[in-house]
Amino acid sequence: MYKVDLNSDLGESFGHYEIGFDRDIIKTVSSVNIACGVHAGDPMVMDRTVKLCTKWGTAVGAHPGFPDLQGFGRRQMHMNKGELKNYIIYQLGALSAFARKNGTRLQHVKPHGALNNMMPYSEQYSREICEALLDFDPDLILVAPTNTMTLHMARDMGLRTVSEVFADRAYQDDGYLLSRSYPEALLTDEDAAIERVIRMIKEGVVTSVTGKEIKIQAESVCIHSDTAMALNYAHKVRKALENSGITICNMEEL
Amino acid sequence: MYKVDLNSDLGESFGHYEIGFDRDIIKTVSSVNIACGVHAGDPMVMDRTVKLCTKWGTAVGAHPGFPDLQGFGRRQMHMNKGELKNYIIYQLGALSAFARKNGTRLQHVKPHGALNNMMPYSEQYSREICEALLDFDPDLILVAPTNTMTLHMARDMGLRTVSEVFADRAYQDDGYLLSRSYPEALLTDEDAAIERVIRMIKEGVVTSVTGKEIKIQAESVCIHSDTAMALNYAHKVRKALENSGITICNMEEL
Amino acid sequence: MYKVDLNSDLGESFGHYEIGFDRDIIKTVSSVNIACGVHAGDPMVMDRTVKLCTKWGTAVGAHPGFPDLQGFGRRQMHMNKGELKNYIIYQLGALSAFARKNGTRLQHVKPHGALNNMMPYSEQYSREICEALLDFDPDLILVAPTNTMTLHMARDMGLRTVSEVFADRAYQDDGYLLSRSYPEALLTDEDAAIERVIRMIKEGVVTSVTGKEIKIQAESVCIHSDTAMALNYAHKVRKALENSGITICNMEEL
Amino acid sequence: MYKVDLNSDLGESFGHYEIGFDRDIIKTVSSVNIACGVHAGDPMVMDRTVKLCTKWGTAVGAHPGFPDLQGFGRRQMHMNKGELKNYIIYQLGALSAFARKNGTRLQHVKPHGALNNMMPYSEQYSREICEALLDFDPDLILVAPTNTMTLHMARDMGLRTVSEVFADRAYQDDGYLLSRSYPEALLTDEDAAIERVIRMIKEGVVTSVTGKEIKIQAESVCIHSDTAMALNYAHKVRKALENSGITICNMEEL
Repeated sequence: MYKVDLNSDLGESFGHYEIGFDRDIIKTVSSVNIACGVHAGDPMVMDRTVKLCTKWGTAVGAHPGFPDLQGFGRRQMHMNKGELKNYIIYQLGALSAFARKNGTRLQHVKPHGALNNMMPYSEQYSREICEALLDFDPDLILVAPTNTMTLHMARDMGLRTVSEVFADRAYQDDGYLLSRSYPEALLTDEDAAIERVIRMIKEGVVTSVTGKEIKIQAESVCIHSDTAMALNYAHKVRKALENSGITICNMEEL
Repeated sequence: MYKVDLNSDLGESFGHYEIGFDRDIIKTVSSVNIACGVHAGDPMVMDRTVKLCTKWGTAVGAHPGFPDLQGFGRRQMHMNKGELKNYIIYQLGALSAFARKNGTRLQHVKPHGALNNMMPYSEQYSREICEALLDFDPDLILVAPTNTMTLHMARDMGLRTVSEVFADRAYQDDGYLLSRSYPEALLTDEDAAIERVIRMIKEGVVTSVTGKEIKIQAESVCIHSDTAMALNYAHKVRKALENSGITICNMEEL
Repeated sequence: MYKVDLNSDLGESFGHYEIGFDRDIIKTVSSVNIACGVHAGDPMVMDRTVKLCTKWGTAVGAHPGFPDLQGFGRRQMHMNKGELKNYIIYQLGALSAFARKNGTRLQHVKPHGALNNMMPYSEQYSREICEALLDFDPDLILVAPTNTMTLHMARDMGLRTVSEVFADRAYQDDGYLLSRSYPEALLTDEDAAIERVIRMIKEGVVTSVTGKEIKIQAESVCIHSDTAMALNYAHKVRKALENSGITICNMEEL
Repeated sequence: MYKVDLNSDLGESFGHYEIGFDRDIIKTVSSVNIACGVHAGDPMVMDRTVKLCTKWGTAVGAHPGFPDLQGFGRRQMHMNKGELKNYIIYQLGALSAFARKNGTRLQHVKPHGALNNMMPYSEQYSREICEALLDFDPDLILVAPTNTMTLHMARDMGLRTVSEVFADRAYQDDGYLLSRSYPEALLTDEDAAIERVIRMIKEGVVTSVTGKEIKIQAESVCIHSDTAMALNYAHKVRKALENSGITICNMEEL
């Protein structure tokens, strides 16, 4: 039997600024990555997002990012040694307080934006993220892009991991994501993307940007949530996966 | 046997900005109130302050404040209903993550600055603070100024409390602190202040600003830590209390 | 001949967070109040909003607010003496840099949110705002709610002023706005509101919430811009005013 | 006759956090670089620092930095195209408002911290900084490290420039500063450093870290101001330069 988790980045509103289709997407995915009030989100948003997750039975995870609200955590920042680890612990603690308040707990952690992009190329960042989880709660699952150094390091350090794939992104021959700065990085044919992700799940392979077959481990699929189109696509992906005999479950149930 | 806790506000450095005599004062007091990265403090400062507390056996507490770094949490802010509660929970979670990392836990919570000043006069703020503790961890002790509505409300809501006094501040006839806007609010005679606080602890009374004897419950004495003079005074207070047969212990040991 | 200015609060997006119908409303009103990167707005938003104003010939003004991005400048803050003045000067300078870059200059200043609400009741705030304008550029026009102490003080201090009214808000007998905490504070009948504002402009009177006729000076009408409905209403107001023989012009042309 | 400017970074306090020996150093140097409320500084600090400069006749310049208060602008940040330019304009506008308030004007601009370090290696950053000055006030002098691409680009774009040297830092063969990550980057012999800087000024040469004689243009010498030792050293440098027949003057007087 095939199983996969669907995860989405939510709780990214801030104060007066409301974004995302959180109420709808929470019913569609199995795991949610919630911003922790540093690159996005605030205490009110965190509380109501966790509450919605408990209402719909969606697993709660942390989505920690760089301290750069104005850049939405999407600008690269160079931290001094030890800083990132403590920034992550801070954010895990803050979000887990709202989990506790709402009678649930954190299932996983998935870094956000520029941090998630830098992490697979930075041993320092990968290590500090893993150490943060180990120090705060060694039961937490780290979600990292498939095939990356981060994923391997996390396993070596004894963490539980989930390997994440994108349906609509191109992969390099080395299994890493192709940077969005390349025009071919984004696949625009929705149906092709869905067939592609089903093959990732069932066969563990994907065709790279140069046409090679490469190995890929699709434990969780990232689902966008910031546009109405994304929301429709999320429903479509879920239905297509279920129709092809794949069970959607959260990360604990994989 | 007489017992009292000595508490001090620490961990108020931020990034490049270093303030406070944390390393010394942590060895002198029994309980420490640590800023949570909102009105002061940051993840690095929080981590190293908690670590120092565990090293010297000083109890760790949270010192949550208003989201106003530029004003150091000392400017009054008017929150919408429900906001303060979530701001407190956020800060408790963030600090408790560093407690967990360093193998300890939070003993107490003492609101900071303008929040601590507004709280005794605001039913909304008092209630939201109590609810935050109950929702996050009902075992936490709330530290509030002696005689205040907040203290009574917290007890009524089932919280453990500690009644805090100041050695060097004038009290009104109603048992509330006299506002610092009055020139007579600050007692400058150190020895008189020490005799005064000993009397608070042993007899449970203090002479108000108008000369009346009023009841006061001195479970914890607030010790300043931001100047070299404050540090000397802290040592002097501690020695004087011990010499007069009062045991210094943390809040759990009261 | 009757003349009136229409003003609207714009440039309130921040980083990744886009709000407001700025592109449309800028073509409809005659003066725009632009957030200055403190309670809302950022350098990119400020630049493009000023640029749009110069493109459409709409006058540029500053909309300074409290340093509270999370509260969108809508939470009351209590500043120490002298702070507000410098906060205003800071914001005027920052925005005027983008005016200079885009070949225009600031016409006016209208305080934002909680600051605008507190100002008519606070002599300290009113005075510091006026002093900020005098120190930075005594040619700037201060926009303040009709009938308020702030407006009178500004005139007494030698500033040019514009008296602002709301079409859809109830007025007290003393000419001040009725607080939004009262249910009757907001008039929901659009056509009645338009007739009401035409009468303000032509006759200089309005019927207060208790039914009294009170004097009102309608030099500028505040137009909301944050919803699609508001945008439609803005067009409707403009057309109705023009149809009744009132010329829409900016504040310099009044 | 030999002339040189002495510049120092000041106005780096923030809210409750006081740092720097501003009051003393302002009397010793000829030009001051003032933080603009983004990586450090706030409206109160900016106002009082400019006021002190006007009191002592020290020239006022802007010291814009990355939006990273927690990192004091010392962490590298990667901005999207066009962002840095607007961040600089914002900061120039804000500081120039306090110059105007205090009856003076900005003489120069010197980028801060990580921005100043990245700038000589980034064509994008160098260009955007130059464009910011040209758009805001083409009369402003750009201060950049001697020999750098930024300095040449600024001259090519028609800006006035000042070439800055450090007395106590090692230079590479290509004339760039050796990164502080190398142990030999910092010269600790104060007297040798002073002789070295006199030679830079009089002969236009310096001995590089590999022992080569390289050309260097010493129009301004950077003076540290953050420690008591730095303050003493500043006095010593000034006296030594004057004793060797070099006139200290601000950048306009070079």
